[in-house]
Amino acid sequence: MRFFSDNAAPVHPAVLAAMAEADVLDTAYDGDRWSGMLDARLSALFETEVETLWVPTGTAANCLALAALCPPHGAVLCHHDAHIQNDECGAPEFYTHGAKLLLAGGEGAKLTPETLRALLGTIRKDVHQVQPHAISITNATEYGLVYRPDEVAAIGALAAEQGLALHMDGARFANALVHAGCSPADMTWRAGVTALSMGFVKNGGMGAEALVFFKRGLVEASRYRRKRAGLLFSKGRYLAAQILALLEEDRWLANARNANEGAALIAAAAGDRLVHTVEANEVFLRVSAEEAAALRAKGFDFYDWGPGEARLVVSWNQRAEDIRPLAEAIAALG
Amino acid sequence: MRFFSDNAAPVHPAVLAAMAEADVLDTAYDGDRWSGMLDARLSALFETEVETLWVPTGTAANCLALAALCPPHGAVLCHHDAHIQNDECGAPEFYTHGAKLLLAGGEGAKLTPETLRALLGTIRKDVHQVQPHAISITNATEYGLVYRPDEVAAIGALAAEQGLALHMDGARFANALVHAGCSPADMTWRAGVTALSMGFVKNGGMGAEALVFFKRGLVEASRYRRKRAGLLFSKGRYLAAQILALLEEDRWLANARNANEGAALIAAAAGDRLVHTVEANEVFLRVSAEEAAALRAKGFDFYDWGPGEARLVVSWNQRAEDIRPLAEAIAALG
Amino acid sequence: MRFFSDNAAPVHPAVLAAMAEADVLDTAYDGDRWSGMLDARLSALFETEVETLWVPTGTAANCLALAALCPPHGAVLCHHDAHIQNDECGAPEFYTHGAKLLLAGGEGAKLTPETLRALLGTIRKDVHQVQPHAISITNATEYGLVYRPDEVAAIGALAAEQGLALHMDGARFANALVHAGCSPADMTWRAGVTALSMGFVKNGGMGAEALVFFKRGLVEASRYRRKRAGLLFSKGRYLAAQILALLEEDRWLANARNANEGAALIAAAAGDRLVHTVEANEVFLRVSAEEAAALRAKGFDFYDWGPGEARLVVSWNQRAEDIRPLAEAIAALG
Amino acid sequence: MRFFSDNAAPVHPAVLAAMAEADVLDTAYDGDRWSGMLDARLSALFETEVETLWVPTGTAANCLALAALCPPHGAVLCHHDAHIQNDECGAPEFYTHGAKLLLAGGEGAKLTPETLRALLGTIRKDVHQVQPHAISITNATEYGLVYRPDEVAAIGALAAEQGLALHMDGARFANALVHAGCSPADMTWRAGVTALSMGFVKNGGMGAEALVFFKRGLVEASRYRRKRAGLLFSKGRYLAAQILALLEEDRWLANARNANEGAALIAAAAGDRLVHTVEANEVFLRVSAEEAAALRAKGFDFYDWGPGEARLVVSWNQRAEDIRPLAEAIAALG
Repeated sequence: MRFFSDNAAPVHPAVLAAMAEADVLDTAYDGDRWSGMLDARLSALFETEVETLWVPTGTAANCLALAALCPPHGAVLCHHDAHIQNDECGAPEFYTHGAKLLLAGGEGAKLTPETLRALLGTIRKDVHQVQPHAISITNATEYGLVYRPDEVAAIGALAAEQGLALHMDGARFANALVHAGCSPADMTWRAGVTALSMGFVKNGGMGAEALVFFKRGLVEASRYRRKRAGLLFSKGRYLAAQILALLEEDRWLANARNANEGAALIAAAAGDRLVHTVEANEVFLRVSAEEAAALRAKGFDFYDWGPGEARLVVSWNQRAEDIRPLAEAIAALG
Repeated sequence: MRFFSDNAAPVHPAVLAAMAEADVLDTAYDGDRWSGMLDARLSALFETEVETLWVPTGTAANCLALAALCPPHGAVLCHHDAHIQNDECGAPEFYTHGAKLLLAGGEGAKLTPETLRALLGTIRKDVHQVQPHAISITNATEYGLVYRPDEVAAIGALAAEQGLALHMDGARFANALVHAGCSPADMTWRAGVTALSMGFVKNGGMGAEALVFFKRGLVEASRYRRKRAGLLFSKGRYLAAQILALLEEDRWLANARNANEGAALIAAAAGDRLVHTVEANEVFLRVSAEEAAALRAKGFDFYDWGPGEARLVVSWNQRAEDIRPLAEAIAALG
Repeated sequence: MRFFSDNAAPVHPAVLAAMAEADVLDTAYDGDRWSGMLDARLSALFETEVETLWVPTGTAANCLALAALCPPHGAVLCHHDAHIQNDECGAPEFYTHGAKLLLAGGEGAKLTPETLRALLGTIRKDVHQVQPHAISITNATEYGLVYRPDEVAAIGALAAEQGLALHMDGARFANALVHAGCSPADMTWRAGVTALSMGFVKNGGMGAEALVFFKRGLVEASRYRRKRAGLLFSKGRYLAAQILALLEEDRWLANARNANEGAALIAAAAGDRLVHTVEANEVFLRVSAEEAAALRAKGFDFYDWGPGEARLVVSWNQRAEDIRPLAEAIAALG
Repeated sequence: MRFFSDNAAPVHPAVLAAMAEADVLDTAYDGDRWSGMLDARLSALFETEVETLWVPTGTAANCLALAALCPPHGAVLCHHDAHIQNDECGAPEFYTHGAKLLLAGGEGAKLTPETLRALLGTIRKDVHQVQPHAISITNATEYGLVYRPDEVAAIGALAAEQGLALHMDGARFANALVHAGCSPADMTWRAGVTALSMGFVKNGGMGAEALVFFKRGLVEASRYRRKRAGLLFSKGRYLAAQILALLEEDRWLANARNANEGAALIAAAAGDRLVHTVEANEVFLRVSAEEAAALRAKGFDFYDWGPGEARLVVSWNQRAEDIRPLAEAIAALG
C-alpha cells in the first residue's frame, strides 16, 4: 500500500466520466462551455464574484498567482518550509522574473503574524533591498497543519496593514476546509486572501487546478501569462470539466474528508510518534531506520523525511480497511 | 460543420481508453511505467537513440526546445509567419529569458537557405547584436506547406555550417510526414534537425506532445526547465499514455492521412481560389466577404484570414462525407 | 581624422572640471547634492515637473524607460532600424523580461502614424499575441533625420488614442532640438512623449545620461530597476555633475550645433551622394569601394554602411577647419 | 567626520589624473588602448592568464560573475549576510534570470566547509529543487573579517569536490589581501576561485571594478551580458584608466593598508565593544543609543547596525590624525 503522496492517486470516476462527456467539438482554449461555467460556479461557492483560470498544475497556479501579486523587483514572504521555496525548482522566480522569496519560521510550516513581523523588521525601506509585496501561506501546510479562519485573518490583517497581497497555496485546500469546518469564503477572502491556488489534482483530479482571484483586475494580465507559459490548452474543456465534476455533489469535500479520516486513523495509532498534530491527510512519524524497514517489509511504502522521521500521506481513494493494517503495524512498533 | 482549427477536435477513442487504463496508482511525475516507455518507443520510431519529454502543449514543447538551443543573449531565426513569432504571446522570449526571434521570409511560411542567408548577412559579429544560435522551422508550415526531407536537409546543412541548432515545430508533423511519404528519421535528424516538437494534440490527442531531442545532453537541463515552468504533471502517466496510444497501430499517421485527404477534397473543389498549394490539412482560399457569408449560411464555420481570404482546417476525425458538402459549396461559388 | 561615431569623442572640459569639483565626500548613491539638483534643473528646462534618474549609458536609459512602460507580456512598437532593435544586444528584452519589439518601417528610420497603424492592424486582440503597450522613436533617428514637434505630436496622438506610452530615444536629442529650433517641452511632453532618454555621452559627456519621466508614478519602480541592474553608482555625484555641467550655459546645445554644422559642411560637398537628408550630425554617403579607399588614404576614417554606402558622424568637438578637408576630398570625388 | 561607508569617498588624485590623460579620442567601447591593457596587467598581477572585463559597479561585477557560473534553474550558495543577498535589490536574480541564492551561516558572515556541507545536505538531487552550481564568498566579509588563503582553499576544495564554481565578491579585496599578507594568486585561483569581483570603487576609484575570470571560456558570453545590461560604456577608456591607475605603484594596496590601519586604531580603542574582530576597514561596535548619540554630537557619523550596535567604515583617504579623535571618543565612553 502506497503512502508516498496524494499526488499520484487515480482519478475519481466522476472526473473520467466528465472528461468523456466533454469529448465533443467545442471552441478552443477557454472558449468552450465548460470553461465558461467556472467563474459562476466558483463565485457561487465563494459567495462573492471571483475571477478564475484553470491551469494544469499546482506549481502553475501558485506561480501565476505570485506573478500577479509581486513585481520582478519585489519579494514574497513565505515559510522556509513552503512548497514554493523548496519543491518548485525556482518556478516562482521564473514566473515573477526573479522576485525573491524571503523566509520566516513557525511551527509545522505555519507562519504567524509574529514571525512575519520579525521578518518584515529586517527589511530596510530602501532601493538596496527588495521590498515585500505579498505573503504566501499554504493551507493545509506542508506538515499537515491547518490555518483556521481566524489565523488566516490575523495574517490577512497584517497584510492589509502593510499593503501586501495574501496568497494561499491550497494544494490541499479541501483538506484544510473540512478540518476547519468553515466555509470557503471564511477561509479566504473574508480573511483577507487575495488569490487562491485551489487544488484538485490531490483530490481526485487528473491535471487541473483553479486559480481564484478575489480581487478584480488581476486576472487580465494572468491570461497573457498563462498563454505565455505554454499553459493554455487548446482543449481546455477537459480541464474545466475535471474541476466542475469534483465540485459537483461536493465530491471534493467528500474526498478530502475521507483522506483526513484515514490520516486520523494512523495518527490515533501513532501516539507519541507524531512529529506534528495531524489535521489534514499527512502524517509525520518518528520511526527508526529499523522500524521504517519493518513497516516496508509489511508492504507499506512512504518517504523518509530526514533522519528518524517518515511522511505518510493518505489519498482521496484509500479506504479505512486499507489503512487499518498500517495503523495496526505502527501501533505494533510499540 | 466547423473548420476553424484542428486544435479543438475531440479525442481519438484509443486515447481515452489508454487514459482509462492508466487510471491506476503509479509513481508520480514521470516515474511511472508509461512515461518510462517513451524514450524507447520514440527511439524505435526515429531509428536512433532519442531523449524525450512529454509536455502538455505545443507552445511548451517549442519553447523548452528553444530554451535548450539558445541562450538569453542569443537569437533564433524563424519565418515572420511562424507560430512562435505570432501565436505564442511571447512564450519563446519567456522561456529563453529574452532571446530574440529574427525574421526571414519565404513563400507559404517556408524558410529557404537563401532567405536565411540573407538574414544572416544582416547580423554583425559583435556584442552589439544578438548572435544566432538556432533556426526554427514549422513542418507542416503555418500555411499548410510541407518541407520535403531534402529541403529540411538543405537548411540543416546551412545550420551545421553556421554552427546553429535546428528546431522543427511539428505541431502537424504527422501531416507533413504522410504528405512527404518519408520516414520520421529522414524528416528529422538525418536532415540535421536537433530537436522536434512532435504534435499529438491536433492529431487526436487531448493534451500531450513529445519534445524529442536528437542530440544528447540537451534533455537534462530541460527537465529542470519543465518543472520550473509548472509543466511537470504529478500524474504524468496520463500524458504518456496519450502519446503511446496514438503511436500504436500508427494511429497518428492514419489520423493525419485522413485530415490531409479531407483538405485535398476541398482543394480540388477550390481550384484557382487556393492561396497556397494544399499539402497538409489546411486550406487557404480567396473568397469575397459575400462568398464567405454564403458558405457560413450553409453551416460551414472557418476563420477569415485577412481581407478576401479564409482558412479552413480539417481535423483528424472529419469524414469525407462531412467534407464533401463543403467542397461542393465552394465549387458552387464559381 | 575620425568620423566613426560621436560616441567616443573626448569629454567637454567643463565636464571634467565639474567632476573634479564633485571630488569631495558626499552622501552615497544619489543622496548627494548634485544628484539632488537634477529634478529641479530638468523640470526648469522642460517647463514642467519631471522625475529623472541619471544612468551611465544610453542603452540603460532606453531599457529602464521601456521596462517602465511595457510589461513582460507586452510589445513595444519601433522602427526596424531602431537602435533598441539592432544595437543593444537584446537589452530591451533583458530589462523588460522578454517583451517583444514589433517593427514598422518608414524613410530614414522615421516612423509615421501610417506605418504604425499598419503594424497595429496586424495585431489581433487576443491572448495569443503580445499586445502593444508603447511606441519608441529615436530623435534624431539612426539615419540622422529629425522628427519635428508636429511629427512627434502626430505619433503622440496615435499613442494616446491607442492607450500606448511614447518613448523617445534621445541619444542625439540635442542635435534634433537645435535642428528643429524648438523648445525641449515642444519636442517631448507637449507632443505626447512619456519618457525621454536624454543623451549626453555623444554630446561632450563621459558616462552619464538622463532618463526623464514626464508622467508621474513611473520613477519609483525604476529606482529599484536601476539598482537591480547594477547601475546605481555609489559615487553618483560624478554622473549628476556631468549632466549639470553640460546643461549649464547651454553647452549641450552649443555642442550639438557645432556637430550639426560640421555635418552640414560635409553634406553640402556631397550633393547627390547623400542617402538621407542631413538634419543632425550624421552623414550617409554613396561611395564606391574605391572612393572609400581614396578617402581613407587621405586619413579620413568612417564606417562602411552596407555595400556602396558609408556613414560619417561629426562629434561635438570637431571644428570646421578639421572638417573642411574631408568636405573637399568628398567634393573632389566628383 | 563621516564613517558611513568607504563607498562614497573622494577619488584618488592619480585616478583623476589618469582619466584626464585618457581624455583623447580613441576607439569606442573596449577597443581603446587602456581597455586593451587590462588583461595583461591583471594576468601579471595574478601570475596566470586571466580574462577580465571592466564594469562600473560592484553589483554589476558580482552579478555578471554569477550569471556566468549558474544557470537560471540553478542555485548559488552564499552567507545569509552576503551583500548579494541583502544589498543588491535582487540583482543576482535579475542577471541569472531567477537562480536562487541558498543561504548558509557562519560567524561574521564567513562561510565554512561545515556550514556549506550542512546546506548542501538539505538539497535533494531531483528536479523539484534548484541544484547548486556555485558558491559565493565575500572577502573581506560584510562584517570586516578576512578569509585567509587556507580558508578559501578549504572552500575551494569543497567546491571542486561538488562540481561547483567559486565566486569571490572582492569589493574589499585589497583590504583582505593586505590583512592576509598573501599574493593575489594565493587568495584566488590557487585556492580554487573561479571568478573575482575585484573592487576599486571603495579603494580610491570613481566608478570602475574589474571582473576577473580565472577559468577560460567564461568571458565570451559575459561580453554579451555586459552589453545587454547597458554596462558597456562607449567611452570605456575612462573606466580602464581608473583601474590601471590604482594598480600602478600598488596604490590599491596602499589605500587599503591605510584604511585597515585606521580601523585598527578604532578597534584598539573599542576593546570589549567589538562585535567582530577587526581585520579589514570595518568596525562593528556595541554602543547604546545614548552612546551613539554622544559620538554623533561630537561630529562622528556612522550607521546604526541593529539595536545596540553601530558600523563604522574607514575610507582609503582618512588619515590617522582624523581618526584618532574618534578613537579617543570611543575610549572615553568607558
